[in-house]
Amino acid sequence: MAVKIGLIGTGTVGGGCIDIILKHAEDFKRHYGIDIELVRVCSLDKSEAEAHGVGHLFTSDFNEIINDPEIDLVIELIGGTGVAHTIVTNALKAGKYVVTANKAVMASCGKQLMAMADEKGLFLAFEASVGGGIPIIGPLKHSLVGNEISTVLGIVNGTTNYMLTRMDQDGLAYAEVLKEAQAKGFAEADPTADVDGFDAAAKIAILASIAFNSRVTIDDVKPEGIRNISPVDLEFARSMGYAIKLLAIANRTEDGIDIRVHPTMIPLTHPMASVNGVYNAIYVIGDSVGETMFFGQGAGRGPAASAVMGDIIEVARNIAAGVKPIVGCTCVDTLPIRPMSEIETKYYVRLSVKDQPGVLAATSKCFADHMVSVYSMMQVRDDDASDAQLVYLMHQTREANLMTALDDIAKLETVNRVATVIRLWD
Amino acid sequence: MAVKIGLIGTGTVGGGCIDIILKHAEDFKRHYGIDIELVRVCSLDKSEAEAHGVGHLFTSDFNEIINDPEIDLVIELIGGTGVAHTIVTNALKAGKYVVTANKAVMASCGKQLMAMADEKGLFLAFEASVGGGIPIIGPLKHSLVGNEISTVLGIVNGTTNYMLTRMDQDGLAYAEVLKEAQAKGFAEADPTADVDGFDAAAKIAILASIAFNSRVTIDDVKPEGIRNISPVDLEFARSMGYAIKLLAIANRTEDGIDIRVHPTMIPLTHPMASVNGVYNAIYVIGDSVGETMFFGQGAGRGPAASAVMGDIIEVARNIAAGVKPIVGCTCVDTLPIRPMSEIETKYYVRLSVKDQPGVLAATSKCFADHMVSVYSMMQVRDDDASDAQLVYLMHQTREANLMTALDDIAKLETVNRVATVIRLWD
Repeated sequence: MAVKIGLIGTGTVGGGCIDIILKHAEDFKRHYGIDIELVRVCSLDKSEAEAHGVGHLFTSDFNEIINDPEIDLVIELIGGTGVAHTIVTNALKAGKYVVTANKAVMASCGKQLMAMADEKGLFLAFEASVGGGIPIIGPLKHSLVGNEISTVLGIVNGTTNYMLTRMDQDGLAYAEVLKEAQAKGFAEADPTADVDGFDAAAKIAILASIAFNSRVTIDDVKPEGIRNISPVDLEFARSMGYAIKLLAIANRTEDGIDIRVHPTMIPLTHPMASVNGVYNAIYVIGDSVGETMFFGQGAGRGPAASAVMGDIIEVARNIAAGVKPIVGCTCVDTLPIRPMSEIETKYYVRLSVKDQPGVLAATSKCFADHMVSVYSMMQVRDDDASDAQLVYLMHQTREANLMTALDDIAKLETVNRVATVIRLWD
Repeated sequence: MAVKIGLIGTGTVGGGCIDIILKHAEDFKRHYGIDIELVRVCSLDKSEAEAHGVGHLFTSDFNEIINDPEIDLVIELIGGTGVAHTIVTNALKAGKYVVTANKAVMASCGKQLMAMADEKGLFLAFEASVGGGIPIIGPLKHSLVGNEISTVLGIVNGTTNYMLTRMDQDGLAYAEVLKEAQAKGFAEADPTADVDGFDAAAKIAILASIAFNSRVTIDDVKPEGIRNISPVDLEFARSMGYAIKLLAIANRTEDGIDIRVHPTMIPLTHPMASVNGVYNAIYVIGDSVGETMFFGQGAGRGPAASAVMGDIIEVARNIAAGVKPIVGCTCVDTLPIRPMSEIETKYYVRLSVKDQPGVLAATSKCFADHMVSVYSMMQVRDDDASDAQLVYLMHQTREANLMTALDDIAKLETVNRVATVIRLWD
């Protein structure tokens, strides 16, 4: 029995999936006994379907797929929370199995959609929503379920990782490297979703929900992006033995889930420190397995399509066997989200100050006043500039204390600005 | 409905599993609706069961588990191919689902056992047989199935990776570091299985079978171990930009499966080069996903038990749902195994020679006679020794040609010995 597929969205990922189905359908039949048949593709642009040799399957109306009684499985590859949300919802309502690559929909409405799928006995698979081609949702939902997961760390945004890598290795400034990333197609014209951390926030919300068996949505994450990072920070970090990465972090703590996205200094010896360029990696710590890492390409036609196809074949196997989903939503606990102000970590702080007597004493007093203890400090004078740089590394401290100290520091007449604050992972 | 488990083997891995079940059974019930009940444990030593608080479940006769009609799932954690093979076979014959961590059984008799399981509609799960806690069999059988996999590279033996790391970082000699590994419990009194590559051979046979959908057994792999590697080789390698790792390699080629285990020089910039100590990693290249890596602890109580528990919960989920296995044996192709003599790769060769005129000309002529082309060469004289070292890097060449050239070289009067031959991966 052929499993019949309707695919919506024929851009990068959708095009990649069409190519794989056309290339490997016979292999899937021979290796796995699964007969996958693409019967309809939908997008706004027929030429895309034609470019992949499936112009004859084209429709511009997604309802023709959702309402087609012949179709078993709907693949949503449009992205965003508008039409895509309608498609996923209506496909489930129509009794279709759904595979999606949509992080935004899953990170905002995952709870409702998973509940709908569970209630109707349908698969809703979304491996491609996080980490591109890297298998991570599968391992978290299956191989690693014997563990209590304490931490998930992700380099899950290829755009910012590319930018930070270039800034680090070639000393380029943020604006310069952003322009380059846009020219190469790694960054959008409006780069906000990437550089301000929203993309990573959606992904870590999805990972945390699965890893901690407790629903986290994108609204629970207040991301900080990389706009403030400059090559001098990367240089200072390296001289102290650290790389700077935009990390998506989720920790299970006694006081709830600590979840955040921000530039992070991580020791150069940590496996995540050498994940460079557009590569992604997800680091998972479990009480039995210890530390594990999943590494690969986080975006692009092939990798994303690989993840979607893994889901398609998995769902098709079950459809062909007449088996209803066994593993649906596993978010049965309701752990609180820990406020950012309560986290305790180490910090790197760079202050741009006037080169005057007393500035070091004044800034250091502000830290002391709020019980923020300095681990190391250096003052660097740039001969070409009128200001000096004070670079502090702080002992473990409460976020709220540090922020209050920095508020005070920002008011000092001798301080130009609090240039950079970077949390440490070590 | 509780899924009832009989566990055979209460050593490191078995003990770890008992601990996890006792600690997390309530979590598994709450998170996954799976009620796992350990009803019997078997080993030769009752005190082990007692040490984990399950002395009351002890039997010394595994047949009491296999023949217990109450038991759904048999966990085989004895290892080796003797009793363990009997247990797995008889458990399947008795209609039990089986989870095993046994690489030796799966790499030698996997075909027969998988066929038996498929025929009887039973699960035979073996994630823990490769890579300890690292999820790799799951991803290969599920998330990555949309790919044609071209290469699997593994650092899958923690003992040798620990030894090579120590030799590299601290300049210790092979014998010294072996003694240390034995003292730390990383190496057995008889280290053959590890240092001569048989352990890695079993693991790559299993991975290749799954990745290439074609059965490979341990007899298809002729491993070379690390006994010949000395600290000077690691030093030379590093100076040329390479690390030396015991790699298990499986390539899909037009002429069949190229499968081997040997010390390998890999560029320091490759993610596998920084997998150090007892850590393992498996690198998978697929036509869509590109390059991915799975990293973690390859052995030890927690990691191995994590993998076993993942299988146990997965099988238990299916038992509870009344679902027969969907993904059984996928080795439906019959690709030939490419003879080692036919492979083409680059080589590092170190010759110990007499410090006499003409030796360089004579050895270089042997290479030229067999069409082995030199990429770079250096001669190093150790003042304390009577011999000199000739270190060659070869362009890509056919293995048979290199070996014939080395046979000729070994016969030269001016050559003490062919000290080391290391293949490159780059």
